[in-house]
Amino acid sequence: MDLRDAEAERNMEPNHSECIYHMAVDIGGSLTKLVYFTKNNDHSDDESEAGVSCPVLKGRLNFKKFETSKIYDCLEFIKSMKLHLGGSQQQDGLERQITAIKATGGGAYKYADLFKERLGISLKKEDEMDCLVAGADFLLKVVRQEAFTYMDDQKQFVQIDQNDLHPYLLVNIGSGVGMYKVDGDGKFERVSGTSIGGGTFWGLGKLLTKCESFDDLLEQSSRGNNRAIDMLVGDIYGGMDYSKIGLSSTIIASSFGKVISDNKDLEDYKPEDIARSLLRMISNNIGQIAYLNALLFGLKRIFFAGFFIRSHPFTMDTLSAAVDFWSKGEAKAMFLKHEGFLGAMGAFMSSDKHGLQELLVKQQQNPNNMLCCD
Amino acid sequence: MDLRDAEAERNMEPNHSECIYHMAVDIGGSLTKLVYFTKNNDHSDDESEAGVSCPVLKGRLNFKKFETSKIYDCLEFIKSMKLHLGGSQQQDGLERQITAIKATGGGAYKYADLFKERLGISLKKEDEMDCLVAGADFLLKVVRQEAFTYMDDQKQFVQIDQNDLHPYLLVNIGSGVGMYKVDGDGKFERVSGTSIGGGTFWGLGKLLTKCESFDDLLEQSSRGNNRAIDMLVGDIYGGMDYSKIGLSSTIIASSFGKVISDNKDLEDYKPEDIARSLLRMISNNIGQIAYLNALLFGLKRIFFAGFFIRSHPFTMDTLSAAVDFWSKGEAKAMFLKHEGFLGAMGAFMSSDKHGLQELLVKQQQNPNNMLCCD
Repeated sequence: MDLRDAEAERNMEPNHSECIYHMAVDIGGSLTKLVYFTKNNDHSDDESEAGVSCPVLKGRLNFKKFETSKIYDCLEFIKSMKLHLGGSQQQDGLERQITAIKATGGGAYKYADLFKERLGISLKKEDEMDCLVAGADFLLKVVRQEAFTYMDDQKQFVQIDQNDLHPYLLVNIGSGVGMYKVDGDGKFERVSGTSIGGGTFWGLGKLLTKCESFDDLLEQSSRGNNRAIDMLVGDIYGGMDYSKIGLSSTIIASSFGKVISDNKDLEDYKPEDIARSLLRMISNNIGQIAYLNALLFGLKRIFFAGFFIRSHPFTMDTLSAAVDFWSKGEAKAMFLKHEGFLGAMGAFMSSDKHGLQELLVKQQQNPNNMLCCD
Repeated sequence: MDLRDAEAERNMEPNHSECIYHMAVDIGGSLTKLVYFTKNNDHSDDESEAGVSCPVLKGRLNFKKFETSKIYDCLEFIKSMKLHLGGSQQQDGLERQITAIKATGGGAYKYADLFKERLGISLKKEDEMDCLVAGADFLLKVVRQEAFTYMDDQKQFVQIDQNDLHPYLLVNIGSGVGMYKVDGDGKFERVSGTSIGGGTFWGLGKLLTKCESFDDLLEQSSRGNNRAIDMLVGDIYGGMDYSKIGLSSTIIASSFGKVISDNKDLEDYKPEDIARSLLRMISNNIGQIAYLNALLFGLKRIFFAGFFIRSHPFTMDTLSAAVDFWSKGEAKAMFLKHEGFLGAMGAFMSSDKHGLQELLVKQQQNPNNMLCCD
């Protein structure tokens, strides 16, 4: 066996467990989410989104997203960061080919061959829902200021008592929406969902406006006025409320309903008004279906997550208002700082080789060990 | 007082009660619905939609709809049929100005002045929900073959035992959607609703296609294929099912989600595919919210009504399938033949001068008196 063969063998069967599972990926219908761990002395992570510092493990968790339609960007990023070679995590400074990472989301099936071909990495598939719930539970228990409420432009952090976390309803808004009743560690059930989600917002938005990206569309919505598009209760009642049932004149009676009687073409409407109307329609609907399920299963807490939200104030306001309206103030909408990375986080957690499980136990013993966002 | 004055006075203050309340109107956000009664010897009703024969009253109930944006068409129709002059119902053949009719829907407020000005008729406002529920109850109790189920292109009439009609959930799909828990005669509550209704279908459809009318859009949808527009479970899972939670590969994961990754403009999509996708999105959503409410309130029967449906096979199929899917076969979606006229029918019923209340009592004594559709 010559050196090359030895190297090839090492590539195939790495025996350095620390270089495996230091990243995980969640490949959804629209977005691909990457979670990876870097040691404190590794400064190559500047590009990642807000991470989480782990003083106990002397490193930090990094979060990064890509459009799934540009999956090659993700592969390039992994290459450029040498994550497929274990990053700079090896004590001996040698690069070792990673042969497998944990992966979840439908794309873990669809793009398995691509990862193998381009990076030499096998995707070890983890169930999407298991990952999502495990990720939510981990973040809610271990990261300081992970959960918050948002209403009338006011963000308020909620300190979660990890012994009183369950049960809750987890609403994950990706391209579509999944709703999960979480009863305890690993104990959960998918109870509902809707096809009207982030993919609908972006899909309809793309057809109706000239917006170039999801974020552009979201930005436009914050400047728009849905009254130009939606039929309000007041439009039907000649400016009056329908007070008998508590419907004020400004409540939307029919999303996009005003368009019917306007003698206008698509070009005559402002894209920001259309974006606003779309966002309200979709957020309202998700909030309503979530609330109905929370009521049905007697759940007081609803956590909204998924990349649709993107910490967008108006989206959070609308979801909160919908839950507040339908529950008559009884239920509370809550949000997660790492909203889009639950699945990827859960996939990362599904290996026990990263020390985080141990951290979780330590944290239970001493709450001061909570992780901090930066 | 000369003859002209006498005539004018008669016009202002008719003392022939039989010429009042022989028509009623429901003016919604998109459509105006008219119900009027004609005697058997009156053949001027050829233009109306399928009516209901009342052998006991020797006449028939006629149903006619107009777009609210073309409210003048409705006024013209009333004039041309001389309905504002009592039609040909007077025994003595004289025309007498009707001074008031029952009216419901938001437009009863908005267009009150117009009716007064153009036809000399005051609109006597009746509460929209009271009318809707009274209309549904009347039609379900008194008209033979009013209720039916529809699934897989099969229409099946349901014989309603009028003593076992309540409780039920009434879902009225107009521009927006209202959901009512009906517990008994006049006993009901608006429990839910959604702004994603017929106005959304037609509003978004108008912006996204070149369809000229609601009916055109509906017709297009019957020829379309939503797979070109929607992201299916199989699109995410590389053609596979997500079998763990019973999501087959053909289930819609994200309405309009496929558009995200397509490098196409609006013009590149077939209007019929867009119409199909819109219709499925909206019907599915209504079916789901209806089912959740039925479950919450322990209601086994869900009646869908309102002009959105228009006896359109695919719409009814989708609503039925949604209820079937979410209830795992436990609940049944049902439809009403006079789906769009509940409010107008209820407004008509709200006067006791037409003999129909009496008919209802007679019918209770002898079910053979049921009214027949033609």
